[in-house]
Order: sequence, then structure tokens, then C-alpha cells
Amino acid sequence: MRKIKYGMIGGGIGAFIGEVHRMAAALDGNFELVCGALSSDPQKSLESGINLGLDKHRIYPDFRTMIIQESYFPEDERMEMVSIVTPNFMHYEPAKLALEYGFHVVCDKPLCMTLEEAYDLQKTVSKMGKIFALTHNYTGYPMIKQARYFIQSGSLGPIRRVVSSYTQGWLSTFLESEGQKQASWRTDPTKSGYVGAVGDIGTHAENMVSYLTGLTPTEISANLNTVVKGRLLDDDASILLRFDNGATGVILVSQVATGEENNFNVHVSGTEGSLEWNQMDPNRLVVRWKDKPKQEIRTGDSGLCDQAISATRLPAGHPEGYIEAFANIYSGVAKAIRTYRQQGDFKIREYDFPTIFDGVRGMEFIQNVVNSHTSVKKWIFYNEFKKSNN
Amino acid sequence: MRKIKYGMIGGGIGAFIGEVHRMAAALDGNFELVCGALSSDPQKSLESGINLGLDKHRIYPDFRTMIIQESYFPEDERMEMVSIVTPNFMHYEPAKLALEYGFHVVCDKPLCMTLEEAYDLQKTVSKMGKIFALTHNYTGYPMIKQARYFIQSGSLGPIRRVVSSYTQGWLSTFLESEGQKQASWRTDPTKSGYVGAVGDIGTHAENMVSYLTGLTPTEISANLNTVVKGRLLDDDASILLRFDNGATGVILVSQVATGEENNFNVHVSGTEGSLEWNQMDPNRLVVRWKDKPKQEIRTGDSGLCDQAISATRLPAGHPEGYIEAFANIYSGVAKAIRTYRQQGDFKIREYDFPTIFDGVRGMEFIQNVVNSHTSVKKWIFYNEFKKSNN
Amino acid sequence: MRKIKYGMIGGGIGAFIGEVHRMAAALDGNFELVCGALSSDPQKSLESGINLGLDKHRIYPDFRTMIIQESYFPEDERMEMVSIVTPNFMHYEPAKLALEYGFHVVCDKPLCMTLEEAYDLQKTVSKMGKIFALTHNYTGYPMIKQARYFIQSGSLGPIRRVVSSYTQGWLSTFLESEGQKQASWRTDPTKSGYVGAVGDIGTHAENMVSYLTGLTPTEISANLNTVVKGRLLDDDASILLRFDNGATGVILVSQVATGEENNFNVHVSGTEGSLEWNQMDPNRLVVRWKDKPKQEIRTGDSGLCDQAISATRLPAGHPEGYIEAFANIYSGVAKAIRTYRQQGDFKIREYDFPTIFDGVRGMEFIQNVVNSHTSVKKWIFYNEFKKSNN
Amino acid sequence: MRKIKYGMIGGGIGAFIGEVHRMAAALDGNFELVCGALSSDPQKSLESGINLGLDKHRIYPDFRTMIIQESYFPEDERMEMVSIVTPNFMHYEPAKLALEYGFHVVCDKPLCMTLEEAYDLQKTVSKMGKIFALTHNYTGYPMIKQARYFIQSGSLGPIRRVVSSYTQGWLSTFLESEGQKQASWRTDPTKSGYVGAVGDIGTHAENMVSYLTGLTPTEISANLNTVVKGRLLDDDASILLRFDNGATGVILVSQVATGEENNFNVHVSGTEGSLEWNQMDPNRLVVRWKDKPKQEIRTGDSGLCDQAISATRLPAGHPEGYIEAFANIYSGVAKAIRTYRQQGDFKIREYDFPTIFDGVRGMEFIQNVVNSHTSVKKWIFYNEFKKSNN
Repeated sequence: MRKIKYGMIGGGIGAFIGEVHRMAAALDGNFELVCGALSSDPQKSLESGINLGLDKHRIYPDFRTMIIQESYFPEDERMEMVSIVTPNFMHYEPAKLALEYGFHVVCDKPLCMTLEEAYDLQKTVSKMGKIFALTHNYTGYPMIKQARYFIQSGSLGPIRRVVSSYTQGWLSTFLESEGQKQASWRTDPTKSGYVGAVGDIGTHAENMVSYLTGLTPTEISANLNTVVKGRLLDDDASILLRFDNGATGVILVSQVATGEENNFNVHVSGTEGSLEWNQMDPNRLVVRWKDKPKQEIRTGDSGLCDQAISATRLPAGHPEGYIEAFANIYSGVAKAIRTYRQQGDFKIREYDFPTIFDGVRGMEFIQNVVNSHTSVKKWIFYNEFKKSNN
Repeated sequence: MRKIKYGMIGGGIGAFIGEVHRMAAALDGNFELVCGALSSDPQKSLESGINLGLDKHRIYPDFRTMIIQESYFPEDERMEMVSIVTPNFMHYEPAKLALEYGFHVVCDKPLCMTLEEAYDLQKTVSKMGKIFALTHNYTGYPMIKQARYFIQSGSLGPIRRVVSSYTQGWLSTFLESEGQKQASWRTDPTKSGYVGAVGDIGTHAENMVSYLTGLTPTEISANLNTVVKGRLLDDDASILLRFDNGATGVILVSQVATGEENNFNVHVSGTEGSLEWNQMDPNRLVVRWKDKPKQEIRTGDSGLCDQAISATRLPAGHPEGYIEAFANIYSGVAKAIRTYRQQGDFKIREYDFPTIFDGVRGMEFIQNVVNSHTSVKKWIFYNEFKKSNN
Repeated sequence: MRKIKYGMIGGGIGAFIGEVHRMAAALDGNFELVCGALSSDPQKSLESGINLGLDKHRIYPDFRTMIIQESYFPEDERMEMVSIVTPNFMHYEPAKLALEYGFHVVCDKPLCMTLEEAYDLQKTVSKMGKIFALTHNYTGYPMIKQARYFIQSGSLGPIRRVVSSYTQGWLSTFLESEGQKQASWRTDPTKSGYVGAVGDIGTHAENMVSYLTGLTPTEISANLNTVVKGRLLDDDASILLRFDNGATGVILVSQVATGEENNFNVHVSGTEGSLEWNQMDPNRLVVRWKDKPKQEIRTGDSGLCDQAISATRLPAGHPEGYIEAFANIYSGVAKAIRTYRQQGDFKIREYDFPTIFDGVRGMEFIQNVVNSHTSVKKWIFYNEFKKSNN
Repeated sequence: MRKIKYGMIGGGIGAFIGEVHRMAAALDGNFELVCGALSSDPQKSLESGINLGLDKHRIYPDFRTMIIQESYFPEDERMEMVSIVTPNFMHYEPAKLALEYGFHVVCDKPLCMTLEEAYDLQKTVSKMGKIFALTHNYTGYPMIKQARYFIQSGSLGPIRRVVSSYTQGWLSTFLESEGQKQASWRTDPTKSGYVGAVGDIGTHAENMVSYLTGLTPTEISANLNTVVKGRLLDDDASILLRFDNGATGVILVSQVATGEENNFNVHVSGTEGSLEWNQMDPNRLVVRWKDKPKQEIRTGDSGLCDQAISATRLPAGHPEGYIEAFANIYSGVAKAIRTYRQQGDFKIREYDFPTIFDGVRGMEFIQNVVNSHTSVKKWIFYNEFKKSNN
């Protein structure tokens, strides 16, 4: 099968998530990196591209040049897809331009900076008919597929309670004051957006809860905390939700839980049972049934659902990790692109990766959190602003 | 050493917590059960007492008779202490009467039904100068002593964030409709009080947070949920707190987390590190330091604090459980009573068990939860009602 | 119910296992300590007895005096049972004398010093018709009862492989040279017997394997190691077994696994599934089925076998530990003694605690280990010495 | 940097380990698969190659053709390296031929079928001066690097005891009789060699023990078991070792531990502490110190050794798994090849991946196991056959 050529925006030397995208794209042999605008600094972009073995002529000084120039290449040479791995403020413009020039897009999360950008991107995706994937990678784990299957197939009964906690400790000091790159942009409102931790990791929790349960929030009670003095954005948050079926939700987020690594977990309880998953032990799903022994479901077990199976590369007991889960998004995109190649079309609902809809929903989540946080009322209606806009 | 004679109110055949109290009292050989008013049904009290090997003459039909009659016994024969192990609505009266007749009291939690009762008991304890212990047993675990030591000695730095989750699944069905004894009174407002799950297990979480951190709440945002249809009290709650030092707190409580057993855990983060403890693996305390390897502290380890050591009976690796932690309260009470015997006095602050102060604070917690729950304001001041009463 | 009066031999101030026996006996309210010969030093015995609140007249200078004098007491005053909690070399004589004077016996493990003693005790038990219990306490855990049920009911299919590892680190230094009491007698051949670690903890592993599987060893290949220089007995061993049904066994024992606490675990594999249990997390039994999801069975779960249920005191999620498991032996003995009281007889096979048969089998295990260790042949027949004696 | 072109022998459609090699090679962007002899069936090789996107002209019907033809390509087009991912019996010939034609080699384990082949390959590697890597992938985990550092830097003190257990359950039925591909060749002496489980997974354990401790065995006592009726090779083994420094070793291997996935663990005890690692939770290393709190070291922690750091791709808390560890071998090979490109030479000891020396040592291990197994003596000298050959 012919590899899918792709270009990358952002992800130069010293970047974290760009390297992850490249490994995820490489893992299953579906993609070939052919070009890049790897840094806002043209010289750094050049060095980074050379380091990655790119053809010098396809290392571009900026994303606009890349998108326009690549569009001139013959179809079998030019990139088919762009991966956008820049900080949040630099998602909207390249994503929109890439779509308009006919490229598929993989974009890091959260989608963008504002709801206006989000809705505009959604329109652009719709208009251009291109594939747009958002890398909420944690839903790529096989055990999350299986958890979703348990829930959506009704095995757990109606869902009553969802708790997701995502805690890290790396921002427990005033790290941005030391010029640390990852900390600096994430705590800078001009680069991160209205929120800090809530955008960086809270949106992962929102995406997880939505992916697993399919429930729609109806009310929210959100509290943002800025624990480290001098910090400009939230580094901790407690968010309560009420869902359309009457279930309750709790999302706890912290980047100041000193010593915590990347402790993302989710508990979902229904009338017939509960399940628990922890990202740091990702190949294990614990199910606690009402009247049966507890089960430990593991990646690679026999009898799992189709989506868990197709998200798994190795036999049971051979741990698959973060990169593999991330790569499952790229694999899904590869399948969609290959369908698109053949049919000039695709049905996004047939693919199991986060899309523009997840991106928009995530941005709405951020807006709801901000609106609730600034309200003295305990509960506000979720997405009330959408109604008031009409 | 002469054993301490005690009587029991409640705890007849089929009771759960009464049996726990008896095992806890027996474990270290300090106590001897000499009398009881073991049930509100005199016949059942009699049968239960015979079953326990009590002298028939000291099996009483009701608590009043017991307290009064025992007071006529010579000092070396009569009970010195009463254990009250009845449902919540039956704590205040026997506790007050026992104190007034000069007996020390161990009382199950929560303290009573109303704040008025709580304050009145506090006055009675103070007036009578007797020992009063409340069985918030979870703070009896050695690893909780050690956790408290880490926090109060400053090792974790100033505390910023406390999260305690206490989830059970046993009330995930409408169990009280089937006449199950434990469920029936706990979900009955006339026997349990203003709250259900919050009183039954939420007060344990409040006690834990207070014991560990010593922080005082200043604001609260509480939400009570009644998940099971037909139930008369809360079976689930999300409670947010703000503390006097600026720290934030989260207490999550549920008795409808299907399949959960007795999953009580607590996470405390300070500027220098975090710690985590889980009741179902109670001999393990995980400490995550900012700049050092994570540590697993275990019951019986060398180098632990004095209070952890004196709460431990066995060498490392020999699991101590729920009854042992419970028994640590009784051991503390035994020490206090022996001091009282010798000195006619004691300094309650020198003993490491929950007292009337914990009981009052727990009742205030319940009141704050109720007040916040019924408020449309996101945050209300904690203990505001105390000021408004003045 | 009338309490069972018992006396204790050994277990004075500073002893470890004597205190455990007392707590185990006290826990369920079945026993009352009425006398003791608590130390080989009469003065220390006296002090220890006073400390325990014993009547001075029933604190004896030595076990012979105690057994004889107690036999003169009226039946409702004298002890009915003796607990022997001395070092190994001091089990045989008091056990035999106590039996001969008509007392029931609870004896710490291993049974005695030599096979001759073991067989003689067995004859005495049989002749006197008294209850004799050996405190291989680890089989008292509810999850071990349940594991045995899975195996013996055939759920796991024919057993193929048993691995038990019991490692501690407390003897990783030459502790006996520092006069530490527990280390000194355990490493002294005149007090411990032919073996050190194998007798102290290896016999627990043998007992566990036998209790769980009921398999009989046919061949053995044993290796004893003395790791710490100057030590007189083994502190580490690797023992391979072949069983009558063709299964293989591995018993690993070490008291020099630095930093290990009391890490005793067992894995049993059959054709249909495997199970795993770890003493330091004793309320959890993992079952790995051939074609079904892994299960975590926990103390207090619904649906457990009768023996697990009757070994459990608390609802699920309330950890029961070492003392509770130990106390299950005492509870079983109490039941047997009460039957004996009524019937003047009892059927030992109806009770679920280790008996003289376990003691003899353990001593045979020690002899087999020693015989194999000193053989250059890889495998020797198990219990070959019994045949050659005939 | 220019990618390293490589060819693959074996690894056609339906293969397990070939796919793993390709993912491992792809992950870090160092390699490009350019040719293959992917199956012994030329038609299947062709289909597999097309599926992988290979140029049809470089999909070869057999390994000889591939090696010879590729050698005619210009240097910048031809493969530089061959990955051999066939069953054991098909390692020696292609490895030797590839080396002789000047290609670097990555070969799956165990090295080959016989000691003669092993020694001959060692000579060939030495003569040709090419890079030869053996994929004992488990030593590629960062926590194993760190464990080795702890041991080799002396932190644990002199090593006394090493226990490694590697259990799987997938061969607990007579799977080879059903034509299952992975089972069929592994249990076929003509394709697997003298041993089954010992070669397949026992050599991983041997490699782990050797890599971690650097100790040399001096004596061995090995027992092979064939548990499943009709099977032609061992599926279970217990192997005892004595090392040159006096330490003892235990290697337990089973592929009939029903329900076990890939449960490979290792415990190493020294005078100052012990460490434990489990492959199924690979980012965690537990260190139990003699006099200090237990530590949990995790991938990505600060303060780790250089080799652990360079084996890590992601921040702490982002799980890295089997493929990443496997890829660490390929990354090491890439570094060595790039040095070779520049210098025409390399120093194999400077690279942290298993080499021909590991392969030879593994084959010697197999021979020792077989020799001991067939001996009635409990212990035989390790590598005695090497002396007797002289």
C-alpha cells in the first residue's frame, strides 16, 4: 500500500508533542513525513527538518508557504495531510488554510482559542469535505474502547455517576518564570487561551467522559483555581456536571498535585456495575459487577469488542502504551484517507477517532467552564450561550 | 492490669457495628463486657446478652435502666464505660445520661441528630469531665498517623489540595424496601438525621481531612444527590471546600457506586510532595515527592513516627486491618481511663482518638452541607450559621 | 456461652507470637486467659503474668507446675486448654504433658524438633482423644478457604503446577550476633532444630500447598543455603517437588531477601485456570481462567464458599488481616471444644484448622528437605525414610 | 539524517514477531524497509511484500537470492542491514550469509539451533566486523537499565539471590495439534531446537539475569517438564543456578500456567537492598532498601541513569511499552551503524543492545540446561562441556 505523505507544522527540535506525532505516524508504516514548517523561526525549522532527513526544498519557513507550495506539487508527490502540533493559538489559521487548500488535517488539542474559531473550522471542514482528526489520544487505548463497549451495549445499565480525575504535578512550581518552554506557552493566555489546565488536560477528561458515555451535560458548576502565585491561568479545577439522563459527573483537574506524573483516571457507575481505568496502567480495565465477581479485563484478552481488537497490536501481556494509543488515531486517519482516495468521500462516523465535532465540543466545554466559574450561581445551564446567541 | 468493665447499648444479634466494637474492645485485653442493653426489644436484648455470656442480671431491657442500675454497683464491680452502638437517633440520650451518671462513653458516629444535641453533649462532656470517644475508626490506621506526621511536621510543605473519595455500592438498589436492617435506618430521616450517605460515610471523610491537615474550612459548595428512586435521603454527594490557608478540598461520597466495597481514599498535596492512602490497602502510604523518588511507607517500617508505632501491633508485612484500627481507639480510651483512675483527671489532647470535638465538628459539617445544598449560591461561608446564631 | 479458660506456656514480655495468640484468642470473645508459665525465668513469668492481669496464684514458674496444679482445680475453674508459644525445642514436652493431663492444646509451629517427637505426639493425641491445633495461621485467611474451594471442587481442573514463595529480609544481617531474641533462637540448632528458615517459614509454605491442593509429594529436590556468614542454619532454600498426580511444585524460602517484609505468596495452575494469592494483600484472590476474564475475588464478596464465609467477620472492603486469620484457628478450636464439652468427643475432620496431622506432615517435610539437601542425587523419593524404617 | 535501508527475512502475513520488528524499526524514524524475503513460500513473500508497499523487484523468493542480489545494488540503494525474524532453525544460515556479504544483522532470539552454529556465527561476526544484534528486547526497558545501574554501581551491595519467573499460559492446551502457527514451530524440535519453553522464554530470563547482574553461573540444576500430553518439547522448567560470587539463582519458566499472559518478572537481592520488576507493569521498579523506605522508581523520573534516560521517549506518566523497549535495540543498532558508516568501525561494548555474545551465552545456557536435565546429579558444573571439548 502506498504510504500517505504528510507535512508537519510545528514540532521542531525540543518540542514534545511533535515527536509523539511523528512516532505515532511512523509506527504502523502508513505515513511518510515529506515536508515541514517546523518552527516559527525559519532557521530552526531548517535545522529541524534536516535533522529529520527532509528534503531541504520541502523545509518551509512558515505554514502558509508550505501549504501553498505543496499544493503546486503533482498529486503523487505532494503531501496529502498536515499535522498541526503547535501551541493552541497556532491551530486555527493553519488548519483552516490547509483544509481550504484541500489537505486532510490532524490537529493537536484543544481545537483552537475561541468558540468562533471552532465553529468556523467546523464549517470549513464540512465545506471542504476533508478528514479532520483531533488528537485526544487517550481514547485510543484498547481498554477505553472496551469500556465504551460495556457502557454503550448496556452491560453496566443506565449510567448514574461519572468521575474523572486528571492530575499532574509538573506545574507545582512557577516553572514558566524559568523559561521552561512547555510551561511558558501553556500558562500564557495569548498562546493557551482562556484556560490553562482545563484546556491542556481538562479537555482530555471531557473527551473521555463524552466518548465513553455519550451523555450530554445539561448543567455545570465549575471552579477554577490558580494555585501558584504569579501564574496567569488556572492550574487546578473542580468541575461538576449534570447529564441529560440524570447522571452526575465530576471532573477534577490539577497540574499542581506535586509528584503526580500523568494520573488520568475515570470511573463510570451504572445500575449493574462500575468500571475503572487508569492511564498509567492502561492495559487494565476493572469492572465491578453488582452480583458477580470483579473482573480484570486486559488488552489482548479473548472476547473483546471489535474496536478494542483493532486498537491492539500485540498478544496479551505485551504492554502497549501512550504512543500506540496515539498511533491508533493515525491508523484510523490512514484508513479514512485510503477510503477517500478510492471514493472521493468518506463517512466520518464509520471511523473511530476524534474529529472536528470533538474539537467543537471541547471548546464549548471550555466556554461553559469559564461561564460557570465567573457565575455566583451554583449551577448554570450547559451551552446556555448557544441559545442566547440565537 | 485490671480490666476496664464496660456496658453496651445496642449491638444485639444481627448488628454489624456492635460486634466490631466488641472485637475492638477485646483485642488488646483492656476491656471486659459486663452488661448491656443490647436492643430496643427487651427479649432480643436478653437473648443477645446470654449469647455473649453476660450475667443475666446485667442484661437490661433499656439503656436508662442499665445506666441507673449500674450506678448502684460497687465501684469495682460496676461498668466504668458505656459503648453506644445504636443508630444515630439513639446516640444523644444515652450518651448524655451515661455522662451524667459518671460513666465514660465511647459513641459511634456521627455524634447525633442535630447541632443542638451536639452542643449540648459537648457541654455535658465538659461539665462531667468524663472521657468521650467517637469511633471515627479510619484515623486509627498507623499509616494515617504517619501521613498526619508528614503533613503536620511540614515535610509536604504548605497544603494546597485535599481530595477524599469514599464510595460504596451496597445502596445501589432500593435495599431499604426489602427490609434490610442496615439500609433501613440509614435511609430513614427519623433515624439517620438530615443526611444519609453524608452522615454515614461523608463524616468519616471530613474527619480524615481534618485529622490529617488540621485545616479549617472557610467556604463550602455542596451538592447532595438521591440517585435511587424512592429513597428519602442522599446516597451520593459532591462537596467542595476552601480552607483558611487557601487550600482547596474535594469530598466525594457515594453509596451507589455499584460494585464498590468500601473504597475510601485520600490524597493530600503540598508544595513539596503529595501523599495517597487507600483504606482497602491500609498498610501502605504512598508519598510522591517533588524532587525525590516516590516512597512506599508501610506499617511496621523502621523510622516511623511515635503515633504510628504505638498504633501497630505486628512486625512489617503482617497485615493489620479494620478491627485493629478500630481497636486503636479503644486502646487510647483505655489509657485515658487508667490515667483518670489514678489522677481523677486527664488531658484529652494527650490522647490520639476522636473526641466530642470531632463529633461536634462532624455535625457542623453536616449542617454546612445541608445549608450549601439548599442554597443557589455556589459558595457559602462555612459555619456562617454559628455567627448568625449569635 | 461460657468462655473457655486457657493457660499459656511462653509468651512473656517481649515475645512476639505469644501476644499474637492472646489477641487471636481474645478477638471473638471465646477464650479467657486464666494462667500462665510465661517464661523459663520464673521472675519474668511472674511480671508478665501480673502485667496481663492474671491472678498471682496462677502464674507458674514452669510448665510442669502449671499443668499439674491446674489439674487439681475444679473443672469449672481450671484451664481447659493450653497454648504453647515457646521456641521449637520447647513444644514437645509441654504438649505431651498437657495432653496426658487431659488438656486440649494449641501449639505454635513447627510441631517439634524431630520426627520421633512428632510421631510420639501423634500417638499421644490419638490416645488421649484431645483437641490439638497447630497455628499454621496463613491458611486461616478467607481467600485461602476460597482458593481451596476452587481447587478441590475441580473448577481449576487437574492441578499441574504449584509455586509458593515466602521471602523475608529481616535476617539479611548477622542479627543473632547482636543478641536479638527472635533471631537468636531461630538460628540456633539446639532451639530451632535441623533447619532454620525452612522450619520457620518453609513449613508454612508446605502447609499452604498441602491445604490448598491436597496433593502428596512423591519426590523432592532440595537445596539449603546459608547466606549470612557465621550463621548456623539455613536462611534461604529452593525446594522442588513432584506430586502423586504428576504436578510439579516449587517452594522458595528466604529470610535474607533484603527489604522484604513477609512476602508469602502462592500460585496454583490447573488445566482450566490459575490462582494467585499474596499474604500482604490477603483479602484478594486473583483467578485467571483459560477462556474467561480474570476475576478478583475479595473477602466478603457474595457467592463465596461456606468456609470462606465463616472465616469472615466484616462486610466486603473492611480489611481483615493477620490477627483475624490467626483467630480463625482459635474460633475453630472453640467450636471443637464446645462440641467436646457436650459430647465428650469430636470429629477432627469436621473442623477447619491445622491439627497434629499437619504437624507431623510438616516435620516429615523438614526431614525430606534435609535428606535431599545432603544427597548428591537430584531427586530422592519423598518419605523414603518411612519405608526404610519399616 | 539518511535513513538506514534494511531488508527482512521472514515476517510475512500472519507472523507476529516480524511485525514487531517493523514497528520497532519504524518508531524512531531511523530505518526504511526496502526489501524482503518474507516467507519460505515465494508467493506468500510476494503478497506480503506488496502489502508492505515494497518495490516488487525487491521482494525476493528466498533469503539467498535477496542477500546476493542486494549486494549488486549501488551502496546508497542497497540494504545495509538484514532483520532475521524466522523460527529458530532458520537463523543461522541467513545470518551467516548476510554477514559474509557485508550486511549488518538484527536477529531474533534464540541465536540458532546448536552450539556449533553459535560459535561459528560468533567467528563470522568477528571476522566480518559487522554489527550483530539479538533481540532480547526485555532488557530494552528503561527500568531495566536503571535496575542494572543500581546493581552494577553497588547500591544494592553484593548480590546474593536472583529469582526470575517467566510464565505464560498460551500453551496450556495441545495447541500445536490444531495447527496454530506460533505453537507449531515452537514445539517442533526440528524448528525450535533442543528445547521449547526454555529456548523461547527461558533465554530471555537468562539474558535478563546476566544483563542485570553480570554474574557468571558456575553450577546448574535444571529440570524440564513436558506437561501437555503429546508435546515434543518442554513447556515448563525449574532451573537453579550458583554464581561465581556465591549468589544463588532461580529461573522458573512455564508456558502452561493457564491464564497467565506474559508474566516475566525478576527479583534481585543484595546485602543493602532488593529490587523487583514486572514486565506487565514495566515502567515501575520497586527498590526495597535495608534501612530506608521502599522506593518506586518510574520511567521518566528525574535523577535516573544515562542509559535509562536515553531509553525513554516520553515524560513520566506516559506509559512506554513492549514496542518501545524493542525499538531501543533498533535505536542502538542505528547509532552503531552510523558510527560504522563514518569510521568503518565501531566498538560494540559502547552500545547498549544484545549482541552475538548474548546469543552465544544463551545457546550455552540451553546446552547447560539440557545437560543438567539429563543428569541424575543434583548439580553439574556450568559450561563443563566447554572444558571437555578442549
